[in-house]
Amino acid sequence: MTGGEGGRRLVHETWGDHAALLARSDQGRDGSVGLVESHVIDVATPNDPLHLEAGGVLRHVAVAYETYGEIDAAGRNAVLVCHALTGSAHAAGRHRREDVPGWWDPLIGPAKAIDTQGHFVVCANVLGGCYGTTGPTSLDPSTGHPYGPDFPRFGIRDVVEVQRRLVRALGIRSLKAVIGGSMGGMQALEWVVRHPELVRSVVAIAVGARHSAWAIGLNEVARRAIMADPRWAGGRYAATEQPETGLGLARAIAMLSYRSFDSLEARFGRERRASDDASLASSFEIASYLEYHGVKLVRRFDANTYIALTRAMDDFDVAEGRGRLDEVLAGVRQRALVMGIPSDVLYPETEQRRLVESLSNARYVRLSSPHGHDGFLIEFVQLAAHLRRFLGEVDA
Amino acid sequence: MTGGEGGRRLVHETWGDHAALLARSDQGRDGSVGLVESHVIDVATPNDPLHLEAGGVLRHVAVAYETYGEIDAAGRNAVLVCHALTGSAHAAGRHRREDVPGWWDPLIGPAKAIDTQGHFVVCANVLGGCYGTTGPTSLDPSTGHPYGPDFPRFGIRDVVEVQRRLVRALGIRSLKAVIGGSMGGMQALEWVVRHPELVRSVVAIAVGARHSAWAIGLNEVARRAIMADPRWAGGRYAATEQPETGLGLARAIAMLSYRSFDSLEARFGRERRASDDASLASSFEIASYLEYHGVKLVRRFDANTYIALTRAMDDFDVAEGRGRLDEVLAGVRQRALVMGIPSDVLYPETEQRRLVESLSNARYVRLSSPHGHDGFLIEFVQLAAHLRRFLGEVDA
Repeated sequence: MTGGEGGRRLVHETWGDHAALLARSDQGRDGSVGLVESHVIDVATPNDPLHLEAGGVLRHVAVAYETYGEIDAAGRNAVLVCHALTGSAHAAGRHRREDVPGWWDPLIGPAKAIDTQGHFVVCANVLGGCYGTTGPTSLDPSTGHPYGPDFPRFGIRDVVEVQRRLVRALGIRSLKAVIGGSMGGMQALEWVVRHPELVRSVVAIAVGARHSAWAIGLNEVARRAIMADPRWAGGRYAATEQPETGLGLARAIAMLSYRSFDSLEARFGRERRASDDASLASSFEIASYLEYHGVKLVRRFDANTYIALTRAMDDFDVAEGRGRLDEVLAGVRQRALVMGIPSDVLYPETEQRRLVESLSNARYVRLSSPHGHDGFLIEFVQLAAHLRRFLGEVDA
Repeated sequence: MTGGEGGRRLVHETWGDHAALLARSDQGRDGSVGLVESHVIDVATPNDPLHLEAGGVLRHVAVAYETYGEIDAAGRNAVLVCHALTGSAHAAGRHRREDVPGWWDPLIGPAKAIDTQGHFVVCANVLGGCYGTTGPTSLDPSTGHPYGPDFPRFGIRDVVEVQRRLVRALGIRSLKAVIGGSMGGMQALEWVVRHPELVRSVVAIAVGARHSAWAIGLNEVARRAIMADPRWAGGRYAATEQPETGLGLARAIAMLSYRSFDSLEARFGRERRASDDASLASSFEIASYLEYHGVKLVRRFDANTYIALTRAMDDFDVAEGRGRLDEVLAGVRQRALVMGIPSDVLYPETEQRRLVESLSNARYVRLSSPHGHDGFLIEFVQLAAHLRRFLGEVDA
């Protein structure tokens, strides 16, 4: 889908654009889940608070989620799809009055790889997110103001605990699969290690068992970019006065790590902007591409949330407090599918190989892509083939 | 030298520390050039101004340079060594009251690879630099104030033109070799393409024939980090009031690209700081490493200079206005040595391979190193062996 004549142009586009194109091209062959809505459910209350791993307590946690397909009588046909850093619960279909489909729409729907005719697909915005689940932009009930930088520290384990409560509330007794890429892959790994009795298989894409120094370093400079913005104000900015410059720069830094030398060279090379203001800005197309993606993120995301979620990623170590990494992974008996991308500089293939070598029952699949880490949001044909096959094998 | 027991520790250290250690360990085997001084010479005057490629004019250009060894009667034993982005003319030996030797000290001296017993070694601070050569920190004679952001736009071609004037003033008739890594490699390539009659050989390390979209993107986010600092003030900051936060962040971003996933993982992994202020700062050692290098650069470098030099790098395309790249490189008949580092993510080996394939008379050498781009400032044993052999062959 990204090859052929359209390939070169597509590199410039975001996963949203891709998904839109692909969803349209899929019409007639596969179905769409159609119009969907996000729902919200409370999974923590003053009587049943959420005790966070780092020691904090949340007395109210709302979760925004979407479901596609129907749950079966046994509550065993559910597939949990976990989103990455800036994603949301909107994984498939369309919202009313919005043209952009969900972030994995080409993979989820009737007759698609994650087939909603047989599966009950669930996707929830993560704890600490800014798309409807309780997080830094939510009102702190004890003050009546948004938590902002005072939102208590949380990690991937807390994210999964919130999902576990949601899953239980939906009547799910066993998850056929937990699937995710990047930060979503961290959740998938945490799920199968923490709740093996609830999970029958796991798919982890473009991720490792714990965050590397390299990935932590990249998140660190992104956070510093946000905090260096005077409008950051220690995180106590008004909702309408985000540290836009800092958050945009953080995104630009991250975008470089999501792509690859070859994909940026093929798309931009040394092309210069048509109208070149030689005064300050660099005149190269790659600069305007990075700026564009920064502006786009600033419009849809929150700086405190960005900081909190990147910290949760940096703290991720599926073995921490559980023993040696190899042994913790060897204890996972579930069928596992691990996918890596050779051009991914952020989570290089060595990390996925380590997962496959240590997990008891894992298969490795290489996604052929020049696009780097973002390949897991681009290479839908390959993803579809491997996911379809894997889901067919889970209960075989 | 970076292997063995000391290897792991050394990864954390800078090239300066390395050079100091290596210089000490070399004593008794090879010689040092000893105490050295930088000199300054005017290479442009109101009667002989420097006309820049971009259209500007400099009526006064001073160049800071150092020389090691003696020029021969024919003026044909000179080796020009070109420094990288934040380097200086101080390539070898020691300055009075300073403990840190020059940046390539392990390679330059009596009986060393670039043997000062037979060669006249020259290194000059580049045009636009902040170590003695005219640049943004210099006084603009027409205003009496530092140029700052008004320093005229210049490129690698202008840097080389200034070096050509210096070389002539020193009585050099033919350069036995022009040698450089990274931005220094750009100068070496420009020299041999522009002045083939003055250059007998060229050594380009960890560089390409023109700056890639990837490298431009990394420089772009670094410049944006500087300019987002309120103290940047459009570049009109006082010398004592640099945009330290922005320049430090720019350096931190660059440091990640100078190293590699594996070297950072081996040195830092997920180690946390002993005293962990959990409030804001990330607690990982990699974060403090990046911060440390930022602070170090801020003390010794200037923000306007950083912006001007990274722009000169981004504009670098040795073929621009000269024809097709392959043909321009094929026109170089001089013996060439190209060195690349497999772990270099900033100037990956594909760029060096392209150089070798196109140049008429080039040999490729792979520097084995986990350290990424910075390998050209670390792998002195390998560098020494290859440089020694190559220089022995130049006039053979």
